[in-house]
Amino acid sequence: MIRLPFHEIENRLYEITVGLGFDKIDARLIARTHTESSCDGVASHGLNRFPRFIDYVQKGYIIANVRPEKISTMGAWERWDGQQGAGILNAHSATKRAIKLAKANGLGAVALRNTNHWMRAGTYGWMAVEENCMAICMTNTIPNMPPWGGHEPSIGNNPIVLAVPRENGPIVLDMATSQFSYGKMEDSQRKGKQLSFPGGWDKEGNLTHDPGAILGGGLVLPTGYWKGSGLSIVMDLMVSLLADGQSSHQIGLEKYETGLSQLFLCIDMDQASDGIAYQQAADAIIESVHNAAHGNDEVYYPGERTLQRRKENMEKGVPVDVDIWDKILEMG
Amino acid sequence: MIRLPFHEIENRLYEITVGLGFDKIDARLIARTHTESSCDGVASHGLNRFPRFIDYVQKGYIIANVRPEKISTMGAWERWDGQQGAGILNAHSATKRAIKLAKANGLGAVALRNTNHWMRAGTYGWMAVEENCMAICMTNTIPNMPPWGGHEPSIGNNPIVLAVPRENGPIVLDMATSQFSYGKMEDSQRKGKQLSFPGGWDKEGNLTHDPGAILGGGLVLPTGYWKGSGLSIVMDLMVSLLADGQSSHQIGLEKYETGLSQLFLCIDMDQASDGIAYQQAADAIIESVHNAAHGNDEVYYPGERTLQRRKENMEKGVPVDVDIWDKILEMG
Repeated sequence: MIRLPFHEIENRLYEITVGLGFDKIDARLIARTHTESSCDGVASHGLNRFPRFIDYVQKGYIIANVRPEKISTMGAWERWDGQQGAGILNAHSATKRAIKLAKANGLGAVALRNTNHWMRAGTYGWMAVEENCMAICMTNTIPNMPPWGGHEPSIGNNPIVLAVPRENGPIVLDMATSQFSYGKMEDSQRKGKQLSFPGGWDKEGNLTHDPGAILGGGLVLPTGYWKGSGLSIVMDLMVSLLADGQSSHQIGLEKYETGLSQLFLCIDMDQASDGIAYQQAADAIIESVHNAAHGNDEVYYPGERTLQRRKENMEKGVPVDVDIWDKILEMG
Repeated sequence: MIRLPFHEIENRLYEITVGLGFDKIDARLIARTHTESSCDGVASHGLNRFPRFIDYVQKGYIIANVRPEKISTMGAWERWDGQQGAGILNAHSATKRAIKLAKANGLGAVALRNTNHWMRAGTYGWMAVEENCMAICMTNTIPNMPPWGGHEPSIGNNPIVLAVPRENGPIVLDMATSQFSYGKMEDSQRKGKQLSFPGGWDKEGNLTHDPGAILGGGLVLPTGYWKGSGLSIVMDLMVSLLADGQSSHQIGLEKYETGLSQLFLCIDMDQASDGIAYQQAADAIIESVHNAAHGNDEVYYPGERTLQRRKENMEKGVPVDVDIWDKILEMG
């Protein structure tokens, strides 16, 4: 692990992306978003995933310089088609549009189809809170997890984002519906570590802490057993039916993860509060959560450590895996 | 356990509720909703909870014959005050209003404060799907669960509902953010059974399958460990800040669970689909979920068994706990 200045990373990713034919403004946004994710501590959807993004562009699964197109308007929510463009660009565009609809209508949403992986889910929650909006964002993904009671990976570990603006630190929950992310399991496997709780089943169908047994022919556990399974199923229905796009089982028919459906829903808080009372109420809730800590307990609200990491990494440099960085230096 | 006809139960609850001074239309809705929950297999928030509802009315924590009042309008979402009325009446009213806002604006929401326990969360999802709306509903509750890493029960096991309309059986997820509901844990304790998975910590701080150890001085486990904890925290922030109402830590200061905050968000599907393609797409997703079953596996989508139980119990009679029914016969 090395630490590099934010802008050095961003500029390198920008050069590679421009080199692939992306428009300069688009390339800048793609480069910045990947770098921000690493800076915030989510390298699995930041730098570590950048080579795969480039690979998908080269293979033609992600198309440069297309623009999402509006399909239809249902009052304060709209259906858009991502035209198989870069997931980050489409999701940024959809979030901006949902914020605009929320500013005009109190709340608003964009359902997006035919898009690609949006990388870090939380990115779009962080965008919304900057505009004083609450947000609910969902995406589907390839089927990689069994529904509760079943033995085929027919549902996705679809992530959900819930975001709440707050001056003293926004609250941004970014969770997949599997117990552990693939990034976490792969990392534990590489380090020869067991997971802190069962994260899936081995080949024999036993719950296991061993990431190698899960990734090597086992099955991933939905978070909270039947609850994460139920959440995943409903979220896939919501995003694909709202967007009139592909659901997980259809995405699973493709060779690569492409043609996703997503939802971006924003609620504007500008009109809803005088500001001071809102901030005090939000601070009091956070204080009550922190008060659950005894002694050396560590209790955090969702997003709290993200801000700590962002601050530290902007000062000391963004942590980068040496092998990934070597790969990125060789690219483009 | 005995089985009684739906209408016999409903009429008995109706008489008691009218006897307490509730308006006849309100009493009918309260009686029907409790009976429906038992009929759907959720007696913990149906008949089994009815005596506590009556107790709260008698103690003055729930006020009869008040009407929710609109506080403010933010375009397609509104903030209402429940005036400390019956939770079922306020939540029905808020759901109807959110559906109306969704029909007019594509999507709409009601944030409700100063209300009481809405009983079965799923009720409001089932209402929304009958009007061809998707729904996202949330409530807060008393602090009864520790946030991840902490040792004080400073957050609630706040339930969330996600609902999707479908002709061949709507999909309605109704989940609390604890691993097991209190009703489930109390039931297992009564029967001397262990929980199927760890449901909390004992007094010594060890994860345990023993419901008695959890309920007798232990702590309840958030579903998915840190994930249910994060969900609960963000949901409390959302409902209380949107409604400008009490958050869990404030509700915990009261002697009884009252003065809750809730969110009812609906998305209209009338304008969004031609109907046939929507139903086919929804059916195909459900089929793909069911296809994960091998051999005798039982794989259900959220709400599937609810419909099965409803059908069975309407035919054979609604299962009623004898002790609860005796108590109800002695009332009013």
